[in-house]
Amino acid sequence: MRISARNQIKGKILEVKKGATTSHVRVEIAPGQVVTASITNEAVDDLGLKTGGAATVVIKASDVMIAVD
Amino acid sequence: MRISARNQIKGKILEVKKGATTSHVRVEIAPGQVVTASITNEAVDDLGLKTGGAATVVIKASDVMIAVD
Amino acid sequence: MRISARNQIKGKILEVKKGATTSHVRVEIAPGQVVTASITNEAVDDLGLKTGGAATVVIKASDVMIAVD
Amino acid sequence: MRISARNQIKGKILEVKKGATTSHVRVEIAPGQVVTASITNEAVDDLGLKTGGAATVVIKASDVMIAVD
Amino acid sequence: MRISARNQIKGKILEVKKGATTSHVRVEIAPGQVVTASITNEAVDDLGLKTGGAATVVIKASDVMIAVD
Amino acid sequence: MRISARNQIKGKILEVKKGATTSHVRVEIAPGQVVTASITNEAVDDLGLKTGGAATVVIKASDVMIAVD
Repeated sequence: MRISARNQIKGKILEVKKGATTSHVRVEIAPGQVVTASITNEAVDDLGLKTGGAATVVIKASDVMIAVD
Repeated sequence: MRISARNQIKGKILEVKKGATTSHVRVEIAPGQVVTASITNEAVDDLGLKTGGAATVVIKASDVMIAVD
Repeated sequence: MRISARNQIKGKILEVKKGATTSHVRVEIAPGQVVTASITNEAVDDLGLKTGGAATVVIKASDVMIAVD
Repeated sequence: MRISARNQIKGKILEVKKGATTSHVRVEIAPGQVVTASITNEAVDDLGLKTGGAATVVIKASDVMIAVD
Repeated sequence: MRISARNQIKGKILEVKKGATTSHVRVEIAPGQVVTASITNEAVDDLGLKTGGAATVVIKASDVMIAVD
Repeated sequence: MRISARNQIKGKILEVKKGATTSHVRVEIAPGQVVTASITNEAVDDLGLKTGGAATVVIKASDVMIAVD
């Protein structure tokens, strides 16, 4: 499957923290650079996400903002 | 200003492509790793974004998805 | 590739309308039921989207709202 | 009230699963086709959502992605 | 129609600026306080939005961030 | 830091309600006008958000919808 989302960055799962319905998954995409995803518990189970596993973070371009100092 | 968005990654602007109302800004966050943002033309003008400038990409955790092979 | 987004519905592309930087793609997911996606022109080109082609609409659960009469 | 969101699909609520602050609501929009929404518990209470009730899923076009095989 | 989105603020349309596929609509929600929406041209036409008209801005809670100085 | 998000409205925090992983923060932006944000618990802790504090709600234009009666 290929998807329209412009941003797809490979990394490694550092942590999966489950809540009541929502999980936070932290993925290291480069040394010391971590992206946090907030996804459903069902998705975590469905994809079998766990610490140390390979994963790709996927982000639609319209969800990215730009900041400057 | 500090913002709640969990993902804030510094980089360098590679390209600013303006459309009729919407611009696409491409930011290199690591060698060969580029993030595309779709933002308003007004934001591009307001922040003075241009190729070569420093910029931080900002993404809310609830807008990040995870994919696996 | 499998993705965390909970909503993935197969359909057929009815129309691809390109703008200056943003395209609107309309996908029929059931007889008479059409979903519109606003994505970048680059994604349209990259995936080779065109009228009549098969496509899956993908939507993160946190982007879905519920309405009642 | 009429809203700008391009995607509004009528269905029937299959399940309402409440978490600590966030609920997951599953709506069947066609036989065997289910859309999951992640919304606040307050919205569930405010709209009186419950299994078996009629509901419309509402999705902004800019939140829809397209995938191909 | 009532919708799950927690944020619904009434105002008056100050400007509708159409692009190739995407419009920017600016709504004054309080004296001097303006909210900008980026929506499809089709939505603008469908709802008959024009300068001076009454309109409600609608925002899902999961799309709101918080910043502090 | 200045950010591309078009909508930045100053207000005062009325309530911070923490869930298992997700918090709801309610900010009064004008007398009687309240905006609800759904953000991570980590963001609440990181920014030190608490009732009575000053805060700015930040919303990307592409996440704003328009409704009419």
